[in-house]
Amino acid sequence: MQFELSKEFVERFQRALDERDHAFILQVLEDVNPADISALLYEFNSEESKYVMDMLSLDIQAEIVRDLDPVTRVNFLKVYEPAQIITMINMLNSDDAADILNELPIKVREEVLHGLDADLRVQVIDLLRYEENVAGGLMAKELIKVRNHWTVVQCIDEIRKQAENVDKFYAVYVVDDQDKLLGRVSLKDLVISDARKIVSEIIEEEEIVSVETYLDDTEVADIMRKYDLESVPVVNVQGQLVGRITIDDVVDVITEQAEEDRQLMSGISEDLEEDDSVWKNTRARLPWLLIGIVGGLLNAKFMGLFKDEIVQIAAIAFFTPLIQATGGNVGIQSSSLIVQSLANPGFVEEGLWQRLTKVFVVALANGLFLSVIVLGANLFLFDHQALSFIVSIALFSVVVFASFIGTVTPLILNRFGFNPALASGPFITTTNDLLGLTIYFLTVHLLL
Amino acid sequence: MQFELSKEFVERFQRALDERDHAFILQVLEDVNPADISALLYEFNSEESKYVMDMLSLDIQAEIVRDLDPVTRVNFLKVYEPAQIITMINMLNSDDAADILNELPIKVREEVLHGLDADLRVQVIDLLRYEENVAGGLMAKELIKVRNHWTVVQCIDEIRKQAENVDKFYAVYVVDDQDKLLGRVSLKDLVISDARKIVSEIIEEEEIVSVETYLDDTEVADIMRKYDLESVPVVNVQGQLVGRITIDDVVDVITEQAEEDRQLMSGISEDLEEDDSVWKNTRARLPWLLIGIVGGLLNAKFMGLFKDEIVQIAAIAFFTPLIQATGGNVGIQSSSLIVQSLANPGFVEEGLWQRLTKVFVVALANGLFLSVIVLGANLFLFDHQALSFIVSIALFSVVVFASFIGTVTPLILNRFGFNPALASGPFITTTNDLLGLTIYFLTVHLLL
Repeated sequence: MQFELSKEFVERFQRALDERDHAFILQVLEDVNPADISALLYEFNSEESKYVMDMLSLDIQAEIVRDLDPVTRVNFLKVYEPAQIITMINMLNSDDAADILNELPIKVREEVLHGLDADLRVQVIDLLRYEENVAGGLMAKELIKVRNHWTVVQCIDEIRKQAENVDKFYAVYVVDDQDKLLGRVSLKDLVISDARKIVSEIIEEEEIVSVETYLDDTEVADIMRKYDLESVPVVNVQGQLVGRITIDDVVDVITEQAEEDRQLMSGISEDLEEDDSVWKNTRARLPWLLIGIVGGLLNAKFMGLFKDEIVQIAAIAFFTPLIQATGGNVGIQSSSLIVQSLANPGFVEEGLWQRLTKVFVVALANGLFLSVIVLGANLFLFDHQALSFIVSIALFSVVVFASFIGTVTPLILNRFGFNPALASGPFITTTNDLLGLTIYFLTVHLLL
Repeated sequence: MQFELSKEFVERFQRALDERDHAFILQVLEDVNPADISALLYEFNSEESKYVMDMLSLDIQAEIVRDLDPVTRVNFLKVYEPAQIITMINMLNSDDAADILNELPIKVREEVLHGLDADLRVQVIDLLRYEENVAGGLMAKELIKVRNHWTVVQCIDEIRKQAENVDKFYAVYVVDDQDKLLGRVSLKDLVISDARKIVSEIIEEEEIVSVETYLDDTEVADIMRKYDLESVPVVNVQGQLVGRITIDDVVDVITEQAEEDRQLMSGISEDLEEDDSVWKNTRARLPWLLIGIVGGLLNAKFMGLFKDEIVQIAAIAFFTPLIQATGGNVGIQSSSLIVQSLANPGFVEEGLWQRLTKVFVVALANGLFLSVIVLGANLFLFDHQALSFIVSIALFSVVVFASFIGTVTPLILNRFGFNPALASGPFITTTNDLLGLTIYFLTVHLLL
């Protein structure tokens, strides 16, 4: 029986909150998964949420705080005293603890850090050194490690001790006496092996995949996806084991990456959620809209140069939307395909000329097909024959140019370290609009 | 030391292939991770790849075939005899085996299925009943289960037996004598508990999260993400444990989902990769471009109705790109935000009116700001005062309308079971273009 968040339930819960109906709240939340409780609390304000939280056991409170998104958490923790924050953080893993500490105002952070359990404090201080978006910032310090010269039974004893601080573990890492990572033994092999065997006899044969602390989080995600890993050990430059990253953190990286790409493609800056304030919504959207506006004004100025021609044959103006829309669509298709191949770990940039040639051939095919269709339609729908031919010639050129721009822009952005998804956003669309207009009117000017 | 796929290495390898340099190939591929070998094989054709494969041990061959993407695999397996396919599939887990069987031509499939080991055959036949994109299609049959009345030591014995067929396991599922899923015990608890305890004493307290066989794969992904699960048990309608899904399969679902959204947003049909053939590229792109073309022709026809006005004041035509581009940008921003919130598991549709009100307020703010900017620019840049005011009034209306369309379209698509990301694609952009033009010319017609 899974918990369901219906409108009726939220309303009933609100009533219970208004009436401070302690018994009802306690009863409905019994045995409910903390992730469900935190989804529920999103519907209420900080004071109300705290009232609910105070009824729950400390470990559930800690899990709920861990599951909140950072923005909500920052606001929510304002109603807590540092001492309360300390007791909650003490129940968490080092990576989650470090994330929360990172979000706290500097003064509170120092106070909370000071109050943490000694072990956790040392671990968190180590983690706080790393930036959020590198392997060091993703990793947790809790892991199970054994020395290569131990026996299986020694390992199991040691795991019993170490496991008290680690709530999930998949693999047991093998290190030498200098903590240098040598490989792993699977828990399964430990469970099914003879107790007197030495660890180095049952160590996994395949070379262990590890990542270094400074590796980019998206590269960590690529590696874990490529090798189908549920956890990956993190080593420092000396090759010493310093932490591990689990797949659930990487799922978050992948989801955020996709969301960021989508925001860039649709022209939204900052990390905007639909339920952010009106002001934040406006601020995140305006800059990109202004790019479009500036482009539109340039378009208008440019068309002004051909005023006489338009007055003579008004139909010239009729086809600007067709030309621009097609240029825009072709450009976005092209850049989107390149962005997708760049995201593929196997992408080899060396075949560049071959790629461009194919893009060119596809553009020729699309351009030719569309121009012929439009020519037929125009000859049938409009009565200006010469203009019909000119529109098709311009359309063909625009398709070819827009394919080229759409293809090379993400490659250039990527080469210089920008997110190539930017190329599917408003900046490039605006450039393509202007390009289309220029090609069209120059064609008209030359041929009509 | 990780394996690196450089241009030099690929060339050197190609030379070795041309010269059938068996020794060199064997030497460089020793101890290399199968995932790296399969990335390497993408650079060569099926015959060459098979030549390399034949040198490798059978379990590595099987892993490589498992890691290939479906399209490549279908082509690659054509050079294999059914008997060879059988030996490879026999080394795989049931879920991977079922995926590969699903891709084979029906005749080969029957033959291969017939030749599989009896256990695996039964499992695969069960899995083939499910569609690819539901929990049943994602799950594997290999799992470790114990009965609620067993002791810890009995469990460990049984796990030793069962574990031979399961290469990774995270949790041990507890079932009753009718195979009904009761909960789980963590491997950790089994390892650290007293050997004489009964399973039901160390079963995890929290209610176990499970999914039913017919659940949509994206919902499985949402659930695993929400509860931070590394694996989830699958039950049938009777509540009996029938399989388990691991997080690595769900990572693939999330990645594919993001890719599909991107393709819809950028107007590409089918599952197109940048290195597909020219013909496939053209075919996947043309339908969406044609939508834009039809829209463009309608635009042209519509502007034709206002021919006299344009001949009188050519400047009217100058501002159509500005109006349309802004309408398009606003529409895509709005729909993208809604698509993002729909992807959020906590989305409650009940707050619809509140949402629409906020969208409206944001649109008013953006519209007002942009209109004023454009009015200022126009009064300064162009000499037609009345038209400047009209452009700003039309722009304001277009921003408000496009926000509305961009917001409700994905909601409607979602309600009727379509992917809401469609709303950011060419179909809606084209509609928005026409809408913008209509509003603009009606405003001109009424006010000028």
